[in-house]
Amino acid sequence: MRMRKKKWADPWLEAHADYALADPSDMAGRWKQLLGCEKLHVEIGTGKGDYLNTMAAMYPEEGWVGIEKDRSAAAVAARKAIEAENPDLHNKRMIVHAAEDMENWFAPGEIDVIHLNFSDPWPKKYTHKRRLSSASFLQMYKTLLSENGTVRMKTDNQALFEDSVLYFLQNGFTLTEFSVNYRREPHEEDAVTEYEQRFMDLGQPIYMLTAARADSVVE
Amino acid sequence: MRMRKKKWADPWLEAHADYALADPSDMAGRWKQLLGCEKLHVEIGTGKGDYLNTMAAMYPEEGWVGIEKDRSAAAVAARKAIEAENPDLHNKRMIVHAAEDMENWFAPGEIDVIHLNFSDPWPKKYTHKRRLSSASFLQMYKTLLSENGTVRMKTDNQALFEDSVLYFLQNGFTLTEFSVNYRREPHEEDAVTEYEQRFMDLGQPIYMLTAARADSVVE
Repeated sequence: MRMRKKKWADPWLEAHADYALADPSDMAGRWKQLLGCEKLHVEIGTGKGDYLNTMAAMYPEEGWVGIEKDRSAAAVAARKAIEAENPDLHNKRMIVHAAEDMENWFAPGEIDVIHLNFSDPWPKKYTHKRRLSSASFLQMYKTLLSENGTVRMKTDNQALFEDSVLYFLQNGFTLTEFSVNYRREPHEEDAVTEYEQRFMDLGQPIYMLTAARADSVVE
Repeated sequence: MRMRKKKWADPWLEAHADYALADPSDMAGRWKQLLGCEKLHVEIGTGKGDYLNTMAAMYPEEGWVGIEKDRSAAAVAARKAIEAENPDLHNKRMIVHAAEDMENWFAPGEIDVIHLNFSDPWPKKYTHKRRLSSASFLQMYKTLLSENGTVRMKTDNQALFEDSVLYFLQNGFTLTEFSVNYRREPHEEDAVTEYEQRFMDLGQPIYMLTAARADSVVE
């Protein structure tokens, strides 16, 4: 989701670098300790932070890290968290950087759930390799995920979803959950963002999958 | 697809038992010879035969066998083939019997493509095992498929499709093609039946997958 550049974003982010981290390679292996959790979620492409902030409040005993490379969006997301009426930052942080470098920030096996919500579909063929579900990302996720770790993906984009199903299967993942209309049932355990609600209001289906490392699933 | 029982069906089928076979266990291993083909397609749940008859005409060098247990539907399908203006039966046959017994009619590795078109979704949980994509069927298909053989499934039914994706992955298949809106592109290589056209006219998506034995797909 692109947004207009906000002039206040850069100085604001610098002033709040303890919450909106720039490149936290010193954190690898220490996230669960920092966030006081046993289960670590990482959302890649956090946008304006609606999902991250809502889920962190819904699951206060789990840890939530949002990665967002767009500095204006990241600043909006972080400000919502910090300037909330009763801010509760104990179990969440943001990383303001492109996800390509996330291997530097997390130790192998440290992440339990990677969330990809309405990621950029990069529709043109020569841009497919930038998709967050493309092969090079999936290989990286496989290293960073815990033994029973999963990638959860939701999207409204048919072509991205179709291709992604094949990417996962071609890169050593299998699917453990799968829906072509995720909001057919309510799923109150999973926050609906404003962005997602717009598709639901139009009657458009939300596609969802959960992928696990194929070698971790006992049949 | 259920239809009203047709009184003429039984005597008609008996009179045309050379085309609409009852239980052809003597044919196992001999289908390609009989149909003069190198590639054998089997459609399970042929209904009134629109797909089978159209595809057999579109691909005259490939062999087509339709399995239909409903004797009235099977009689309609077979009569359309036999009483066509210029009947051409050289590359097709029907089997009028429940598919549970198909291991008796085909040799291991004999079938190249199994087609499941708009199969009965059996929505109630205790009937799921009757679905043509359920585990016991998939295990049988694995035996009957050639090394690079595939199962092609199309359906309008979301729950059947969602569950089937997981059935395939849990039973030693992987997906090689996958669509949540197959008719978004024209796909003129694949016949559209009247039944399918009704969904398309209503703007409802057709779900499609092609599954191959996981051990046959080199990554």
